[in-house]
Amino acid sequence: MDKISPSFFRHEGKPIRCKAAICRKAGEALVIEEIHVDPPQAYEVRIKILCTSLCHTDLSFSKLDTGPLVRFPRILGHEAVGVVESIGEHVDGFKQGDVVLPVFHPHCEECRDCKSSKTNWCTRFAEDFLSNTRRYGMASRFKDSSGDDIHHFLFVSSFSEYTVVDMAHLVKICPEIPVDKAILLSCGVSTGVGAAWKVADVEEGSTIAVFGLGAVGLAVGEGARLRGAAKIIGVDLNPKKFELGKKFGFTDFVNPTFCGEQKISEVIKEITGGGVDYSFECIGLTSVLSEAFTSTRTGTGKTIVLGIDKHLEPTNLDSFDLFRGKHVCGSLFGGLKPKLDIPILVNRYLKKELNLDSFITHELNFEEINKAFDLLEQGKSLRCILWMDK
Amino acid sequence: MDKISPSFFRHEGKPIRCKAAICRKAGEALVIEEIHVDPPQAYEVRIKILCTSLCHTDLSFSKLDTGPLVRFPRILGHEAVGVVESIGEHVDGFKQGDVVLPVFHPHCEECRDCKSSKTNWCTRFAEDFLSNTRRYGMASRFKDSSGDDIHHFLFVSSFSEYTVVDMAHLVKICPEIPVDKAILLSCGVSTGVGAAWKVADVEEGSTIAVFGLGAVGLAVGEGARLRGAAKIIGVDLNPKKFELGKKFGFTDFVNPTFCGEQKISEVIKEITGGGVDYSFECIGLTSVLSEAFTSTRTGTGKTIVLGIDKHLEPTNLDSFDLFRGKHVCGSLFGGLKPKLDIPILVNRYLKKELNLDSFITHELNFEEINKAFDLLEQGKSLRCILWMDK
Repeated sequence: MDKISPSFFRHEGKPIRCKAAICRKAGEALVIEEIHVDPPQAYEVRIKILCTSLCHTDLSFSKLDTGPLVRFPRILGHEAVGVVESIGEHVDGFKQGDVVLPVFHPHCEECRDCKSSKTNWCTRFAEDFLSNTRRYGMASRFKDSSGDDIHHFLFVSSFSEYTVVDMAHLVKICPEIPVDKAILLSCGVSTGVGAAWKVADVEEGSTIAVFGLGAVGLAVGEGARLRGAAKIIGVDLNPKKFELGKKFGFTDFVNPTFCGEQKISEVIKEITGGGVDYSFECIGLTSVLSEAFTSTRTGTGKTIVLGIDKHLEPTNLDSFDLFRGKHVCGSLFGGLKPKLDIPILVNRYLKKELNLDSFITHELNFEEINKAFDLLEQGKSLRCILWMDK
Repeated sequence: MDKISPSFFRHEGKPIRCKAAICRKAGEALVIEEIHVDPPQAYEVRIKILCTSLCHTDLSFSKLDTGPLVRFPRILGHEAVGVVESIGEHVDGFKQGDVVLPVFHPHCEECRDCKSSKTNWCTRFAEDFLSNTRRYGMASRFKDSSGDDIHHFLFVSSFSEYTVVDMAHLVKICPEIPVDKAILLSCGVSTGVGAAWKVADVEEGSTIAVFGLGAVGLAVGEGARLRGAAKIIGVDLNPKKFELGKKFGFTDFVNPTFCGEQKISEVIKEITGGGVDYSFECIGLTSVLSEAFTSTRTGTGKTIVLGIDKHLEPTNLDSFDLFRGKHVCGSLFGGLKPKLDIPILVNRYLKKELNLDSFITHELNFEEINKAFDLLEQGKSLRCILWMDK
């Protein structure tokens, strides 16, 4: 990053006018509008977004038109890197000019579970994912040109030149890492690598199967590669994902289209001589979860749920298989504690171990955000970096 | 045990005539008959049963009349203590006169998983639970007075004065422990205590809920008590189980009959302020499994499946709850490796820490075995010791 001019901080304590991409109605293109961003309140930080990217959650929420999570107008976006413009009262650990990564998953560092090494679930905050601001309920820091509130999204709202984020959702990162690489650690890649490292705890020589080779699924493979897994099997309907998968350590591929009468789990059991040690569901379909579960070794197999079923269908797992020693568990943000674990991933990147570069397939200006949505929806991009100031 | 007379070993290498309780037809009373027990083949041990007990699995199989597991005539029974009468070739670690515990769950000590500390699943043997003898398929060591084969059960068949057990299913125990107490470690109590210790890994101060207070469920409580759990909640329809539960450390009780409109999981969440850390399903109903799962804390709760659904219904768990970090897993024999872990339990009993005595509610002569079945079926007994020679 270039040196920051003192004028960058001139709005401290005052609202800032800037551009944001607003989602005004389900299924419609985002609209770039001028908005007001209020100064941060206690425990909050206002940041200037340097670049942002989008993942399937943004896409889903731009289209979702029913349910308690639906809210318009809204500023989506939750993968980003920014720089601290100003801080509210009681903000520890951040100062103006810091390079920071906002994360949808909270890490208050004070509750029972934040202090436990067993989980990354923040009991204090994680249960509430409906509020706009973490400590102020539906209060918003965004107003449109008519003075009306605009809703936040996942406590980040990075499709805006400026946003206000609670300190529990912010990680300070080493400024040596290029921001367009760091951005990948804000959600998708951390989720995948973390699932392999923290949730499954993949060991050297073990076998894994990943269902769905989007950024999260590919990152699971990358995490398993770094752990020395012997077989990393990718399952996807899109054959283009297989060439890409090789960059992240995938050794075998199964395309359900060509399995004929055979179930995917049967093919995987053939490849591995009885089933994989770990399977990862990265699509969000309970039917796929059942296949992922069946694909693991009897008695010991562990299945990790990374995708959320849109219709919230209950699980449909073979209870005898479960009884005989199999495991299944879910995790948010790959079981990582953001403030503790993201710096470790940054470090692994700087040591040229963790492959982040191959996730970036496109770069566009922020104004071209709707094009980025199209690329993701058509399965053409993994991650498209949207630059704010280019 | 008394000193063994040399004449005890006079049948070595020859068949032995003795009494056994035979299940000739589903649902009918067992019949005491004279049988022949062949000498042990390679890797097998012939043991004289000192005492046996019965659990719900014996009861279920005495009634089961359809499916691949059904087979008559059969010698049931899988909880017992015996003394080694003779050994086959290649038998390591056992000699004549040893006091031994047969266990339905194999432990070959040589396969990948037996050597791993992660699981008690014996890849080499555990998958096959249909054979009569572990290494000889449907070959039987039992013949009735007409010379016809009698089927084995769970590689133990302890409802007989003599039985032949593979060395992978046998644990040598310290003769200091009274045999009627040791017997409890052969299946039910080990399964429960192991589930608390090995599978859940219950910590001091944690909270647990146990669904179904049979011997296994009560043993889960006992395991959690020894780990210093703060709250041990028992769920059962039978109020008599609550008084009994106190002997094993249970602190709270929920009787579904008196929950009215409230779900059991809601009551448990009220008692614990948000849900238990660990729940245990010890009944074998997927509907109960769903409640047990819902009763755990969001983000971190772990549910352990100890009961097997008779109709093998698939699981029906809330997928959003699972996605947000909950765990569910099954285990056989409480995740214990028999040859490694049973001696540890014996030791904890001898140190007066583990309560085994309170599980014994009845004692009968072996000939009264049908009375023991009645007591179990009517919910009147936890464990009834059947003495062979009294």
